[in-house]
This record gives sequence, C-alpha cells and structure tokens, in this order.
Amino acid sequence: MPPSPSRKVTSFEVAKLAGVSQPTVSRALRNLPGTSPHTRQKVLWAAQQLSYIPSDSARSLSTTRSRRVAVVSEELTNPYYPELVEPLRRHLAAHDLRTVVVTDSEHRQVGAEVLADGSYDGVVLTTTLRTSALPRDLTERGVPHVLANRVLDHPESPSCSVDNASGARAIATLLADLGHRRVGMVQGPVATSTGRERAAALRAELLARGVQVRRELTLRSAFGHDSGRAAAAELLDRADPPTAIVGGNDVIALGVLSAARERGLRVPADLTVVGFDDIPMAGWPLIDLTTVHCDLEELARTSVELLLEAIDTAQPEVTERRIPVSLVLRGTHGQAPA
Amino acid sequence: MPPSPSRKVTSFEVAKLAGVSQPTVSRALRNLPGTSPHTRQKVLWAAQQLSYIPSDSARSLSTTRSRRVAVVSEELTNPYYPELVEPLRRHLAAHDLRTVVVTDSEHRQVGAEVLADGSYDGVVLTTTLRTSALPRDLTERGVPHVLANRVLDHPESPSCSVDNASGARAIATLLADLGHRRVGMVQGPVATSTGRERAAALRAELLARGVQVRRELTLRSAFGHDSGRAAAAELLDRADPPTAIVGGNDVIALGVLSAARERGLRVPADLTVVGFDDIPMAGWPLIDLTTVHCDLEELARTSVELLLEAIDTAQPEVTERRIPVSLVLRGTHGQAPA
Repeated sequence: MPPSPSRKVTSFEVAKLAGVSQPTVSRALRNLPGTSPHTRQKVLWAAQQLSYIPSDSARSLSTTRSRRVAVVSEELTNPYYPELVEPLRRHLAAHDLRTVVVTDSEHRQVGAEVLADGSYDGVVLTTTLRTSALPRDLTERGVPHVLANRVLDHPESPSCSVDNASGARAIATLLADLGHRRVGMVQGPVATSTGRERAAALRAELLARGVQVRRELTLRSAFGHDSGRAAAAELLDRADPPTAIVGGNDVIALGVLSAARERGLRVPADLTVVGFDDIPMAGWPLIDLTTVHCDLEELARTSVELLLEAIDTAQPEVTERRIPVSLVLRGTHGQAPA
Repeated sequence: MPPSPSRKVTSFEVAKLAGVSQPTVSRALRNLPGTSPHTRQKVLWAAQQLSYIPSDSARSLSTTRSRRVAVVSEELTNPYYPELVEPLRRHLAAHDLRTVVVTDSEHRQVGAEVLADGSYDGVVLTTTLRTSALPRDLTERGVPHVLANRVLDHPESPSCSVDNASGARAIATLLADLGHRRVGMVQGPVATSTGRERAAALRAELLARGVQVRRELTLRSAFGHDSGRAAAAELLDRADPPTAIVGGNDVIALGVLSAARERGLRVPADLTVVGFDDIPMAGWPLIDLTTVHCDLEELARTSVELLLEAIDTAQPEVTERRIPVSLVLRGTHGQAPA
C-alpha cells in the first residue's frame, strides 16, 4: 500500500519494500562500500516506487556528523539500566552508531545543553520524568530523540515503553486469587510514568477484586535495592504487616526480599514478594522472583527504530508504542498465611 | 624535592605543589574560565618552580581533540563491570573527560583500529588478556592507555589492579581454619591475570596449610553467573562433592549459590561458598556473600590518574600499581560438615 502523501516516506519503508535492512538502504543510497550492485539496484527501485527523498537536512542519516547517540541513563550500578542500555547499544551499533552513556541522577539531571552541543546525532532518554521539559527543549533545539521506557503526561516526542497497566493487573489478579487481603506496595517514584502507571493499575484492579490497598501500606521508593529494603522494613515492622508486597520494579523487590531475610521471614510461606521487569537476575535460582516479564530487547529495538525515523524525518510523528508484558510465576508467591 | 632532570615533570606534580587539583592546573594553564586569578597565579608559580613545560604534542591535555576516553569493558550486563565503569566514568568526568564505553566479548575483541581512529584522547582497558598484543599496538599508534584491573605477563603499559594473591591467601587461610579438606574451585579464565593470580595463590596457600586441591575439583568458567552455575553443578553432582567452593569472582560465586539452591543444599551448613570482589550485591542481606573486598573506587581513581599521566607525558613509565584487599566475613562460610 503506498503511503499517504501527507507524510514523509521513511528509509524503513524503503527497506521493507526492498527486503533489506534500514542501514543497508542508508549505505546503498550513500554509495558506501558493503552493498552489492544487486542490492543497491533493489534499494534504488524501492526508493523510486515510494518516491522516497532522502532528507537533505543537516540531521539526515546521509550527512550525520558524529555517528554517536547519547543514551541518558541512571547510574549503571542500578541493575535495571545495563539491561536496557546493553540492547540499545547493540541495536545502535547495528546501524553504525556508537553509544555514549550520559548518566543522570536524582541530584543532577542531564540538561539539553549537554545533549545539544553537536556531539550527538540523536538522544535516547530512559529516565525522563512525567512532566519533564527536556523533550520539548530538545525538539526546539532540533535534536532528534526518543523516550525509551518512559512516557510524558502530555506526549510530544516518540516513545516506546512497556504495557505497565496490564502487567500490574496480572499481579493484582494473582494476589487476589491467592487470598491476600493485606497487600503492601513499595512503588517507584510517582514522578515517573513507570512508577505511577504500575501503582495506579495495581490499586484499581485489586479494588475491583475486593481488596483495598490501605494508604499506610503504600510506600514510595527510588528504583533501587537499598531504598526498597528500607521501605519494606517499615511495612514489615508494623503491628499488622502485609502478607504480600509488590515492588515497583525487580530491584525494589530484591530489597524487599533482603528485608524479609533480615527478619527471618520465609518467602513465600510468610510473605509473598512480586517484582516487575524480569531482569535476568530475577531468574537466577538463588533469587527465583515471581515478576512481570518485559521484553527489553524488543523495547530497545523499537526505540532505536523510532530514533532513526526521527533522525530521518524532519517532523517525526508523536508515536507511542507499547511492548506487551507477561506474568512469570517463580518461587516468591504463595497462598496468604491463614 | 625537585624532580630529577632525566624525566618530564607532569601536571600532577604542579598540582601538588600548587595545592590544587590536576584539572585546575590544566584549566589555569589553558586560560579557561573557572579558575580565580589567585589560583592561576599559584599554578603559574608552581609550574615555574618545577620548570614544567606543557606538552606540545597532539596528545597534550592542552590541545586534546575530543575530550573523550574509551573504556573497554565487557558487556555491562555482567554485574561486575558497571561497578568498575561507573567510578571510572565519575573520575574521568571530574577531569572534563567523557566516557565512551566500548564493549568487548568473548567472540569479538575490540581492536586497536577502533580505539586509534582519533575519536579518543585515551583508553582504559579493563578486559585485556595476559598475552594481549593490544597494549603494544596502542603504544605504537601513540594512543595513551592504562590497564585497569588487569596486568600483562610482560608489562609494557601502566596498570592498576588489585592484590589478587593476598586476597586468595586470606580465603585459603579461612577455609583451612574451618576444617575444609575437599575444596572446589570455579576459577575464572586462565587467560586473564585475575583468573590466574587468584587460582594460583589459593592453590599454593591451601597446599602450604596441608590441603591439596584435587585437579578434578578445579573447573574454569567465564566470569558470569550462568557459567559459574554450570561448573558448580558439575562439582556438586560428583559422588564426593566438595564441602567448600571458591568462585573466581563474586558473579561466579552467585552462580555457585544458585546451583546449591537448586539442589536444596543449605549454605553454609552443607556448603561453604566464597567470592572475590565484594560487588555491592554481595552485601545485600538476600545474598550475604563472604568475599574479598576490592576497592573499585580507588582502583578507578588510580587508573584515571595513570591515564592522565600517560596523556600528559610522551613516554609514560610502565608503572604497576596494586590496590590492597581485605576479607569480608558474611554468611556463606562455615565449619566443614563432619
């Protein structure tokens, strides 16, 4: 089906029609070595069929300056981030783009001036807060970018994240079915879409199943082990501790498991613990965490695809892609204690 | 004491005499903003006292081209590497240098051509094998570099690593004192200095204490959880399994703990497990691993200092620095079962 004339044809559509990869299209049209005459012919034919015009802006793939992409991440010692950064790096490398990791922290947020200094062809934002002005700043400065794993309250940039709501609903169903009535939450920062979406859907679905999450059993934590452990300690030291605690992500859930271990609680006999993300560590027999699987490989692949479209197109669409998730039943969930 | 005239004065010596940091010296001599007139005067005075001549080679700090440093690391999903890369990044950033992580893997080793393409002012090598030709290649191409955490059999570049031998001897002493006689080892790759130094010192010290490590109880593994788990499974499924297993690093030891968990073995009642590195995860109550603490912060700081000296000096000395280590007694070691 020919694309509608109202929007710009992208190199991805050319690649699809030619039956080759996007980098091959880019290389063939730039006349770079590494493409056979036959492949080049296929690409030229497809480009013609679709009336594809390679962008001649300074940002076009054919004239990029640095072939570097900044990935804004939290400190990599937070075990979630390497699991997202590594596949991003791999997919960017497949398009001849080198990754420069720029780390953010609670104390020092990376600003547009660092990202728009001409060092980068594009930016992947993985830590953006719900109300951040950074995406708009980057748009105004003409820096192609994509949000990976996060969305804005008022979307104005392409984003790819996971289906947090359906994952949280699956956890709620599991806990309700296991008879848990005193459910605790150590949710992630409410300023993040990840934190808010998961907490809101969990609370709503539990309520729909007759379980009200009491306000005093809901604590907030940074997405890290130590803060998760501290919050869980507070819940477990109550006179009426919860029988199940849901972590805002796996790393928080690991902190919950640490707090349980310190108190001699048996998991899951005394306490059910559930995470979110399914980082590889969650599957280690030593950990064996029941959690929601997020396909970070697919999240990275799609985010890079959106970024390349943004680099390729002067006015990228504000697409919002969601990657499906699934519940993984391992060893940390069980019937509520009588 | 004035430096001997036979070697070049470095900006670090100027910094020391002036009582300021090396980046301040660099900035003051380049007349960059951010230094007060008073500080600049102190730096100029110190430079004069020491007859410091800023290098005028293309590699000099005062004329660096990219202000980027490549850190060659394994995939960051190996939990050890972020713990080393993150402080390296921080110390490089303190000197206005941006970190580009270039990842190596067993299948694809990063070559000199990638690192010497003019993109980087210097290189930190964290994965170099004992007999690698890469350091010499970089020297021949004039790329300043340092080995962090690894040493060559025949040193020809500055390096900073940890005192693997004394850490391994401390483990041997602990195990002998606890009465272990059937000790298993899942050592790291013998092609790495880390793997070889730890294994050799452990074996020698155990022997000195009357414990012979049998060849069939010594297995090799990549520095990862899954390969550590597979090797430990082989040891634990023997008719005469070891009563203690030492991992070549913490991540291997986590794999050993996973294998023990899968077999329903109690740690440390049935099996003692000891790691090496003391990555933060080892201290989580959930893990509680007895291990050897390596100060990666100090390792990173010293490595960056050596790199800056190499950038600053045309002919850097082939220094070998070692960071002291210490045994950390947590919950995974105990008396040998009767």
